[in-house]
Amino acid sequence: MEFLVRQFNRMPADEESRRLREELRPRERQVAQRLREAGILRRLWRVPGTQHAIGLYEAEDVTVLHDALSSLPMFPWLEIEIEPLAVHPQERKASAAPAAGSGPE
Amino acid sequence: MEFLVRQFNRMPADEESRRLREELRPRERQVAQRLREAGILRRLWRVPGTQHAIGLYEAEDVTVLHDALSSLPMFPWLEIEIEPLAVHPQERKASAAPAAGSGPE
Amino acid sequence: MEFLVRQFNRMPADEESRRLREELRPRERQVAQRLREAGILRRLWRVPGTQHAIGLYEAEDVTVLHDALSSLPMFPWLEIEIEPLAVHPQERKASAAPAAGSGPE
Amino acid sequence: MEFLVRQFNRMPADEESRRLREELRPRERQVAQRLREAGILRRLWRVPGTQHAIGLYEAEDVTVLHDALSSLPMFPWLEIEIEPLAVHPQERKASAAPAAGSGPE
Amino acid sequence: MEFLVRQFNRMPADEESRRLREELRPRERQVAQRLREAGILRRLWRVPGTQHAIGLYEAEDVTVLHDALSSLPMFPWLEIEIEPLAVHPQERKASAAPAAGSGPE
Amino acid sequence: MEFLVRQFNRMPADEESRRLREELRPRERQVAQRLREAGILRRLWRVPGTQHAIGLYEAEDVTVLHDALSSLPMFPWLEIEIEPLAVHPQERKASAAPAAGSGPE
Amino acid sequence: MEFLVRQFNRMPADEESRRLREELRPRERQVAQRLREAGILRRLWRVPGTQHAIGLYEAEDVTVLHDALSSLPMFPWLEIEIEPLAVHPQERKASAAPAAGSGPE
Amino acid sequence: MEFLVRQFNRMPADEESRRLREELRPRERQVAQRLREAGILRRLWRVPGTQHAIGLYEAEDVTVLHDALSSLPMFPWLEIEIEPLAVHPQERKASAAPAAGSGPE
Amino acid sequence: MEFLVRQFNRMPADEESRRLREELRPRERQVAQRLREAGILRRLWRVPGTQHAIGLYEAEDVTVLHDALSSLPMFPWLEIEIEPLAVHPQERKASAAPAAGSGPE
Amino acid sequence: MEFLVRQFNRMPADEESRRLREELRPRERQVAQRLREAGILRRLWRVPGTQHAIGLYEAEDVTVLHDALSSLPMFPWLEIEIEPLAVHPQERKASAAPAAGSGPE
Repeated sequence: MEFLVRQFNRMPADEESRRLREELRPRERQVAQRLREAGILRRLWRVPGTQHAIGLYEAEDVTVLHDALSSLPMFPWLEIEIEPLAVHPQERKASAAPAAGSGPE
Repeated sequence: MEFLVRQFNRMPADEESRRLREELRPRERQVAQRLREAGILRRLWRVPGTQHAIGLYEAEDVTVLHDALSSLPMFPWLEIEIEPLAVHPQERKASAAPAAGSGPE
Repeated sequence: MEFLVRQFNRMPADEESRRLREELRPRERQVAQRLREAGILRRLWRVPGTQHAIGLYEAEDVTVLHDALSSLPMFPWLEIEIEPLAVHPQERKASAAPAAGSGPE
Repeated sequence: MEFLVRQFNRMPADEESRRLREELRPRERQVAQRLREAGILRRLWRVPGTQHAIGLYEAEDVTVLHDALSSLPMFPWLEIEIEPLAVHPQERKASAAPAAGSGPE
Repeated sequence: MEFLVRQFNRMPADEESRRLREELRPRERQVAQRLREAGILRRLWRVPGTQHAIGLYEAEDVTVLHDALSSLPMFPWLEIEIEPLAVHPQERKASAAPAAGSGPE
Repeated sequence: MEFLVRQFNRMPADEESRRLREELRPRERQVAQRLREAGILRRLWRVPGTQHAIGLYEAEDVTVLHDALSSLPMFPWLEIEIEPLAVHPQERKASAAPAAGSGPE
Repeated sequence: MEFLVRQFNRMPADEESRRLREELRPRERQVAQRLREAGILRRLWRVPGTQHAIGLYEAEDVTVLHDALSSLPMFPWLEIEIEPLAVHPQERKASAAPAAGSGPE
Repeated sequence: MEFLVRQFNRMPADEESRRLREELRPRERQVAQRLREAGILRRLWRVPGTQHAIGLYEAEDVTVLHDALSSLPMFPWLEIEIEPLAVHPQERKASAAPAAGSGPE
Repeated sequence: MEFLVRQFNRMPADEESRRLREELRPRERQVAQRLREAGILRRLWRVPGTQHAIGLYEAEDVTVLHDALSSLPMFPWLEIEIEPLAVHPQERKASAAPAAGSGPE
Repeated sequence: MEFLVRQFNRMPADEESRRLREELRPRERQVAQRLREAGILRRLWRVPGTQHAIGLYEAEDVTVLHDALSSLPMFPWLEIEIEPLAVHPQERKASAAPAAGSGPE
């Protein structure tokens, strides 16, 4: 099942938080890369002009997705909105069940 | 440049509109397929429980995207919201400019 | 996977629509009952003071749920919002995977 | 009477609050379990991607429900929205007054 | 249990609707008066500058309230929001259970 | 003139504020009781699941009401919304000018 | 007592409504002028780019104001929001009770 | 004085309206061109995916702007929001009063 | 040109801020009085139940208004919304250009 | 491609932040001027009554724009909303591709 996930970064802008974010960044990338390799994180975009992100995720169900997202080191400072995506009729034609993330491109 | 596009279908639910939608459907699919072949329409999902859709589009700029969307037969009945997507730092690492729609999957 | 589904009834209040709703009601109940027997529709409440409803649904994924909801005769006049529900840590303890809709009551 | 209750966890993400939440967690579960045994807390779900919850509660009236919720140790940090649920006509048929939380499943 | 009920009058402003409203008015008052005598409708105010109303209602539970409101002839044209009211600690002191609608005045 | 007043309690949930609220509570009740005796505070309800309140007030005009509300010790921490209430046509019939708060019950 | 009143003109843009508005305009101005002479309508502005208006009104209480506004021929097509205004401390100094609409100028 | 003006096109999507829009288009362009020559309309953009527009206008005051906008043939079907723009400190430096619309490019 | 200006007072409710507000108050009144004498501040009302204000201002253009408002000592703690007001057709009749703030009273 | 960019200044109003803003101002102007010279920042307005700004920007795509905006020293304290602008049909006539920011003035 595919999900569109908005990740609002609510970490304050003060100096202490800036340092904490730098410390967390390597592990954040590591966990994100692991989610990519597991086929859970399919695409990630930056909301321009912000520190927020939008991701295309795929998971067996939303509880598996919740566990994946809450494993991100930045999770305590993220405000997350999850939107489930149904297969569009036009993409059902392309293949019985299109490979996650690739779609009929 | 990639865009997330919400397409709200505002065609009324009465019988006359239902017939018009059936008439337009083949041409709507034709135009959508042409946009896919042009690399503009990358993915299309159904907002579950509705007749609305969310699409991942790619175009040189937003005026080209506008012209593509306004070529859809259903355009007069669509309320469309376009959100530009910036490349995320984590995906810049994967490749200088990741192929549209595929991402580092 | 469980979902909370809000079903706003947007059928107008004029006389013609009132008659149409009466005509559709028996088939609406039939389809709803079939969804109950399939274990998809678990609970249904009336939003007090309105013609809207809130339902607890369960389905393998959101595309299956979409197909179930769009099979309702009233679907063209329903504005539907679907909210995916993750298993709460407190209910994970009760049983590995609590039976849909019953919960640890 | 049944209620849908949204429980937004507004405790900040700093280290001190994280420790306080860990301290409160055992008592929070104790009180929640007592509310289950009293037939007040029927179901509890996690809003995926967040620390928020949605609960199906049942109580004689909303003042009894208020007292139950305000007995939760986390209450001072919870922003709560309560939505009363009326019995749906389709569930009135199943039984004069369906057992709380079970519904006609 | 007490409820604050907002009743938005969505009947259109055209001539035909104006005549229908005049026809319904006597029966609307009759039903409202019956609800007063049953102790369900306690107070009714006009939202100034509009055709909308706010009422203080009392009922055993919200399903009883729903049935009372849906018995109003204008119900099909009313958009209704129901807000349950809990007894305030300051009014619990006045009397164990203050008579509905009167309060400690 | 009658007013519906929403009083959102914005005092933070930390320990220091909790103690301050306990200190202010006796004087808060004293002032509230004085407003009752002056016929200004007619009814007070708890918004269930919160520390917020809804009150039915009556005052000669809104400046008098403002002065009454700003005399509450908790005023600096209250976010207040005031809604003026016009006499409903159905209550004009009952008595030329219904006694505040009692209505035609 | 002074009020800020927003008057949204919801009359549709079709030809028939345009003619009706022209017919009502003379009487609308007459009634408005009567309200000025009664000291109820103090100032009237156009919301630029629209057919909406904002007015500064003064009335003994909000029920008197409601009756004045509902006497406007355009009332059935107006969506009205009324905001009560309290005397500002800075204007209390100028004069015990500043003349409506003139203020301390 | 400069203004940012959003022009939402609320003309319905039915066939009759489509023909009316085609009829009005030449005159709409004529009036727009006159406003350009008068230095009132400085820039006009299309909100991508819609029939709405955003314009940069300049006028002596907002009443002059209102008269200019209400002279557009499409005015009855436009929902317009006007936002006044103050000169930014950084552009005050460039020139005492930068030529409207050109800015320091 | 006339403007309706909402001034939300966002100064926190703690003791330190309370003292700062008392210190600033005399200068705040001085500056406000200067703006009155300059014909810029025409009227000022208190939003009842709050520390917020609504003002009727008049200035040559919105940049002049911005400079006037930013000269208020409380400016750093004010969240301000400015709404430009166009002359209403009914007030154009009264006098070619009605004196600011007085209107045709 | 042109963009309308809203820059909300979320720096708190306390004394420490005021000093930090003064320190950052020279570099903020330097970076802004560099963006002007690069043809990226076309126009900048002050939202009257606030510390917020609205800018007309032009960039090859939104990732280039994101990098430009995140180079502003105030970026960590800015909440930014980016709106892509399509070329309006009326401005396509003026020139095949109107020079950025100038438009057909």
